[in-house]
Amino acid sequence: MQLTRQTVNQHTDQIYDVLVVGGGAAGLSAGIYLQRYLLSTLIIDKGKARSFWMQELHNYLGLPPDTPGREVLKQGKEHFLSLEGDYLNAYVEEIIDEGETFAVKVRIGRKNPTYEVFHSRYLIAGSGIIDHLPQLADMKNVFDYAGHNLHVCLICDGYEMRDQRVGVFGSSEGSLQVAFPLGWFTPHITLFTNGLFEVGHEMRERFTEAGYTLNERPIRQFLGENHQMSGVELDDSSVVELDAGLISMGSNYHADYLKGIELEYNGGNLVTDSMNRTSHPRIFAVGDLKVGMNQVVIAAADGANAATQIWRDIRRAEGTRRTAA
Amino acid sequence: MQLTRQTVNQHTDQIYDVLVVGGGAAGLSAGIYLQRYLLSTLIIDKGKARSFWMQELHNYLGLPPDTPGREVLKQGKEHFLSLEGDYLNAYVEEIIDEGETFAVKVRIGRKNPTYEVFHSRYLIAGSGIIDHLPQLADMKNVFDYAGHNLHVCLICDGYEMRDQRVGVFGSSEGSLQVAFPLGWFTPHITLFTNGLFEVGHEMRERFTEAGYTLNERPIRQFLGENHQMSGVELDDSSVVELDAGLISMGSNYHADYLKGIELEYNGGNLVTDSMNRTSHPRIFAVGDLKVGMNQVVIAAADGANAATQIWRDIRRAEGTRRTAA
Repeated sequence: MQLTRQTVNQHTDQIYDVLVVGGGAAGLSAGIYLQRYLLSTLIIDKGKARSFWMQELHNYLGLPPDTPGREVLKQGKEHFLSLEGDYLNAYVEEIIDEGETFAVKVRIGRKNPTYEVFHSRYLIAGSGIIDHLPQLADMKNVFDYAGHNLHVCLICDGYEMRDQRVGVFGSSEGSLQVAFPLGWFTPHITLFTNGLFEVGHEMRERFTEAGYTLNERPIRQFLGENHQMSGVELDDSSVVELDAGLISMGSNYHADYLKGIELEYNGGNLVTDSMNRTSHPRIFAVGDLKVGMNQVVIAAADGANAATQIWRDIRRAEGTRRTAA
Repeated sequence: MQLTRQTVNQHTDQIYDVLVVGGGAAGLSAGIYLQRYLLSTLIIDKGKARSFWMQELHNYLGLPPDTPGREVLKQGKEHFLSLEGDYLNAYVEEIIDEGETFAVKVRIGRKNPTYEVFHSRYLIAGSGIIDHLPQLADMKNVFDYAGHNLHVCLICDGYEMRDQRVGVFGSSEGSLQVAFPLGWFTPHITLFTNGLFEVGHEMRERFTEAGYTLNERPIRQFLGENHQMSGVELDDSSVVELDAGLISMGSNYHADYLKGIELEYNGGNLVTDSMNRTSHPRIFAVGDLKVGMNQVVIAAADGANAATQIWRDIRRAEGTRRTAA
């Protein structure tokens, strides 16, 4: 059931089989499988999964190619709740490994927050990442277009940008190299530094050879209407017309709550085995937080794998019978 | 586009980037990703993917929990065709590795078949498996219930069988051991040998200890109506009432066409890396044919991985630009 600040303390004495951090595609898929394995599951979600921002999923098998990401999340949450899973809107602050169980400290609410501690035997980290966006004076101007035709995922949306005039918005020389695979889809590429970093001689030559334009002026604002970005206005009031944009500024990893636990990482991503188990035997990682591609359908499969492996673990430890909840 | 026996010879001179064997969940997901990477794709499907038989998918994120498997396949095929992928109903007989390309021999049609050879640079094996079913005198009697409440997948449908009287239909002593994980969901289990194999002393004791009943008589027919199996009639006219069944008789692997190529297998399953590449650098395996769990959402993720790795390979080999088809 949906837990609330008022009802939550009825659940703090319980030891859940699994606590899932993050109610995105990976966490919800895990939750659906777990409840179907008769394992008690609590999903804690802070809101605004990365797929929530996606206006159209174009490559998820079984759904029409203009399905908004938030529809998948809505359907998944309903599905999970119909299987009697518990769901709480809250922020996970810290995980403490107590040996057989984890203590999970959460903050509920932004104004006058309350704090609770939940317990579970297993933990699934599905809290994902969020893309860094260009920092302009008026951020609403960025949010107007991000997730529409100001894309953050080349693998997802390269096809949408084919033969278009595309602006690439980077945060470092290295981040602008996404232009080369983007060049598979379109030759009309302008690279923007927003005046924030230098591009070395060698990389300039590679961009020139590829036919890309480098623009190093500070950006004043994105232009457009109805969530369709049509270009960029620079600090000297000049305008670069564009059909689409690709933001390549790295990501923020939502994994602060794991800091007290020693885990193997590759960059910011958790390393897992083929069933999504991390280097800690009772912690699994799913979706964008783990090593691998950041795709909704892969996140959903991660959830299936992690849930199944946890079921196998618990079943072997407990014997052969669990009474339906 | 949908190719037909009449139009197919317009496509036999072409070298496809990728030929996908099997239009199930894995192959269709791969095809959707491949076409969005601007790679030319031909899916060859013989019909009747395993998920086609599933009356209700209960655990696929984003779809209501009673969605028929064939709906996912229908939506996926439409999606693939809308991206201008090619699709042919035919049977793949043999693959010949020509070094840079594969020659793929197919048979089109059952009556008065015609034969064609296609060419592709990469191959995705997504032809899956099909479950062995109990062989009764009247097979229609089996088909009436299989995929309804005569299940073939414990991971998928254990939840549906919770606390029910379940018959397990095996093909060997080992295959009946699925009863132990099934015991997580229900204690009311009867094991049927159909009079076809012996069960040793040690296993009998384990079944007895677990409280399971062993029935070794030949089966005359399943009983029931409206696709709901309600029991089994044995050769002596006695009846065992059941609420559901679980078939555990192994599977047939649709991989004969790969026989001429040396590949690494684990049992009948192809071994792949994390991006679904087999031991052959230009052959990928997706879905039930590869090592891993047989789940629709995992098959769909396999397709995304294989397609993306092939795109990376081809992009690096060709340079940075492909004109949209």
